[in-house]
Amino acid sequence: MEKVKIVIAGPRGRMGKEAVDLVLGTDTYELVGVVDRKYEGMKVGELEGFPASDALIYTDFEKCLQEVEPDVLIDLTTPEVGMFHTKTALKYKVRPVVGTTGFSKEDLDELEQLCAEQETGCIIAPNFAVGAVLMMKFSQMAAKYFNDVEIIELHHDQKLDAPSGTAVKTAEMIADVREPKTQGHTDEKETIQGARGADYEGMHIHSVRLPGLIAHQQVLFGADGQTLTIRHDSYNRSSFMSGVKLAVDTVMKMDAFVYGLENIIE
Amino acid sequence: MEKVKIVIAGPRGRMGKEAVDLVLGTDTYELVGVVDRKYEGMKVGELEGFPASDALIYTDFEKCLQEVEPDVLIDLTTPEVGMFHTKTALKYKVRPVVGTTGFSKEDLDELEQLCAEQETGCIIAPNFAVGAVLMMKFSQMAAKYFNDVEIIELHHDQKLDAPSGTAVKTAEMIADVREPKTQGHTDEKETIQGARGADYEGMHIHSVRLPGLIAHQQVLFGADGQTLTIRHDSYNRSSFMSGVKLAVDTVMKMDAFVYGLENIIE
Amino acid sequence: MEKVKIVIAGPRGRMGKEAVDLVLGTDTYELVGVVDRKYEGMKVGELEGFPASDALIYTDFEKCLQEVEPDVLIDLTTPEVGMFHTKTALKYKVRPVVGTTGFSKEDLDELEQLCAEQETGCIIAPNFAVGAVLMMKFSQMAAKYFNDVEIIELHHDQKLDAPSGTAVKTAEMIADVREPKTQGHTDEKETIQGARGADYEGMHIHSVRLPGLIAHQQVLFGADGQTLTIRHDSYNRSSFMSGVKLAVDTVMKMDAFVYGLENIIE
Amino acid sequence: MEKVKIVIAGPRGRMGKEAVDLVLGTDTYELVGVVDRKYEGMKVGELEGFPASDALIYTDFEKCLQEVEPDVLIDLTTPEVGMFHTKTALKYKVRPVVGTTGFSKEDLDELEQLCAEQETGCIIAPNFAVGAVLMMKFSQMAAKYFNDVEIIELHHDQKLDAPSGTAVKTAEMIADVREPKTQGHTDEKETIQGARGADYEGMHIHSVRLPGLIAHQQVLFGADGQTLTIRHDSYNRSSFMSGVKLAVDTVMKMDAFVYGLENIIE
Repeated sequence: MEKVKIVIAGPRGRMGKEAVDLVLGTDTYELVGVVDRKYEGMKVGELEGFPASDALIYTDFEKCLQEVEPDVLIDLTTPEVGMFHTKTALKYKVRPVVGTTGFSKEDLDELEQLCAEQETGCIIAPNFAVGAVLMMKFSQMAAKYFNDVEIIELHHDQKLDAPSGTAVKTAEMIADVREPKTQGHTDEKETIQGARGADYEGMHIHSVRLPGLIAHQQVLFGADGQTLTIRHDSYNRSSFMSGVKLAVDTVMKMDAFVYGLENIIE
Repeated sequence: MEKVKIVIAGPRGRMGKEAVDLVLGTDTYELVGVVDRKYEGMKVGELEGFPASDALIYTDFEKCLQEVEPDVLIDLTTPEVGMFHTKTALKYKVRPVVGTTGFSKEDLDELEQLCAEQETGCIIAPNFAVGAVLMMKFSQMAAKYFNDVEIIELHHDQKLDAPSGTAVKTAEMIADVREPKTQGHTDEKETIQGARGADYEGMHIHSVRLPGLIAHQQVLFGADGQTLTIRHDSYNRSSFMSGVKLAVDTVMKMDAFVYGLENIIE
Repeated sequence: MEKVKIVIAGPRGRMGKEAVDLVLGTDTYELVGVVDRKYEGMKVGELEGFPASDALIYTDFEKCLQEVEPDVLIDLTTPEVGMFHTKTALKYKVRPVVGTTGFSKEDLDELEQLCAEQETGCIIAPNFAVGAVLMMKFSQMAAKYFNDVEIIELHHDQKLDAPSGTAVKTAEMIADVREPKTQGHTDEKETIQGARGADYEGMHIHSVRLPGLIAHQQVLFGADGQTLTIRHDSYNRSSFMSGVKLAVDTVMKMDAFVYGLENIIE
Repeated sequence: MEKVKIVIAGPRGRMGKEAVDLVLGTDTYELVGVVDRKYEGMKVGELEGFPASDALIYTDFEKCLQEVEPDVLIDLTTPEVGMFHTKTALKYKVRPVVGTTGFSKEDLDELEQLCAEQETGCIIAPNFAVGAVLMMKFSQMAAKYFNDVEIIELHHDQKLDAPSGTAVKTAEMIADVREPKTQGHTDEKETIQGARGADYEGMHIHSVRLPGLIAHQQVLFGADGQTLTIRHDSYNRSSFMSGVKLAVDTVMKMDAFVYGLENIIE
């Protein structure tokens, strides 16, 4: 079997570094080049802290595509650079796998149309943690049968915003299918303000912050005589790589545009 | 809208009693009769501990079907009686919803053919707890992405068999889709025998028994840097009734044979 | 060994009924009488739903004490009646075990003095669930070593007040020993109001309400690289009886006044 | 207030490196020297990967004690070296804090006597994770009231032995106080061998191994109508440092010998 030829954009970021390790460590993949803002012409293996690799570093993305003719682009840069890379890759019929939460509705529409014109697959993923994506997908499925749900997300105490983005995204996905309902007793009252958490269309979200915690979320469904709990624990960044691999393997088999890993999970 | 006319077989059993309460308490349902071994001709409301109802008690099932012409049979009897009821109901084009784990492969094949001939829907459910069914279904879905899984089931200490039927059924469903793997370190050793639990095709199952516990199960999936946990807690028998209701509503819309609630859950 | 002779006040309440079962089912106990508002002169075994017992029912508490000369009074009535019973019992040097949250500070002071004068043991318990009492006690102990703590309490959705009394009591007990601290990032902000829960002296309390749930609480402590969780699940009223038994056995060995089971747990 | 003058033995090990960071990062501590097998006369800050510090490196422990006159020795070496260091330190009335599981009963007896002769405090700790120590201590306390207990320990799948040392230690501590009991139904049977886990004096221990997991343990107690769960999650090595700090602060205030952090926790 021929190896999948891959270019990585943003190799020196934290995610990019993990992606380089993933590609070099996977038998069916071949790292044919990386795109960076500097170090033009050096080899990946010459970067400090990187494993041995003769893949060349390019600062000119288009030149890179022309010279190494990859099958797939893994882009882990910023939304601006990523948008430019994704459009350019599609122009060359190179399949993009892009990790970003920063694309606008207009960006996504434009990319979807470009995919159709070029008949080239493309996956944009706001979250590469397969476990988190499954948690969200299962929660949406369960909400068709369990009308009552609360979300508890737990993070380290250096996190600034509450609830977390994943908790809000989960609530949105549930709200898309759940019959609207204001939960709890109609006469319930908080003797200390905030006890019942954040209200999202009648669902309640609770944000726990403690030193020691990393990134955890559980979704609780309740009905007469039973509860169903779906929980994801993320311990470190390596959890994203199974999602990147899933996206690369899937994008090789399709011609369409996909936004969100939940849409390639059966 | 016309109400769904329902006959219940086995009304004085623990599940049957709950089913009577369900049907009487649901606006869209009408209890038109019950089938019992005795009390021919009495009314359901005359049984000790039952709510008011004029539905008649029949000891002759076929006579019952002829007189009250139900849409649906809810059967909560024994496998032997249930098999007779189910076949008879299908003959009259009455849709059966049957809660049993006791039908053989031959029984199921026979019923499937009978459904096809009669063009009548029929649902056989070994487990009516929707939450437990979702747990099993989600576990099977997750196993496509997470190759490593362990099952912990927790029950009261009066339970005789370990692992529980639900745990074994979950493991079977996972094994159907999971790439075979012997989990744990290849050189792992038990310093006290049994520590690593039961081995089911390389997956490990652990059975906890404690007074106070009721019926609980969690399925843990692990991969680099993350874990995904799916847990069901069953606190009492009322948890089965949402599944009975789901089955009744679904069987009214279909002509086919279904074994297991997981197959009517989307 | 001589059996402990016990009188129960309030036998027809939900707790009282369980207490009758406990005393009749314990080899070392003897039910010598019960105190009720009515049924003077009948036997306990003649009450509907009660097991066989020749213990007499008294409506006059003092007469009961004089005739049956019990060792211990288990009082499960109201605060008003309970206060009268407790004082009267102490006068007769009968040891009271009283389950109530309704005694005032003045009531408790008065009873403590009366115990000292009569040299008779007495236990007043706002909560008889030994597991819940241990959870609170352990939480207080842990708070000396873990400065960061959040409480999640989970109850059925018919509960009116949030947070629960047990959660607030837990927070109070922690606050007694914990170095004061406002938890979470100093710049944290709620994008949906209430996400961070109720604030009790810098600790956060979260109240989950779902059908199916019964009465659960977990206390989470976090520090660099680790978390410690203490959780209590209460499934039904029978959980209180081990606490009643502990109190009866303990009160037989002491002459002093005790408020709260946590003070007889070592 | 005068700073506590500390010498660290074994600074280049994983625990030792963390200890250097702890001492340098604590206002009330002063790092006055380290003991290593090599690098005599260099400064700690000159070691690769270490923060700035003028503390000198000694290969001769006795010379180190004479020159820098520390209050406390933190020893994170091997059992053999650690035993020699501890005895030498006590001779100089320097208080040892030693992290090891490797001392024999005879070693411990010898050290206890030496402490008494020298009237110098000494703490030997097999486990510095305060949360784990609290879990074990609370479990022992709870076992006086809950006779039924099961232990579930969960670790990454590179761990070789099952059950974990902490699980066995927890079971031992519980067995010291628990009324002996064979748990589960007397007629229970395993349909797949090992389901009920390892048997330790009638208690059951279950060992879960999955990639992604780090080091976790939960102890479940059950009784009529309730369960109590105590859980510790260890995410990384930094969790040990709060225990080292607790030991240093405590050893400064005492003259006696202590084995196990559980004995300095109130």
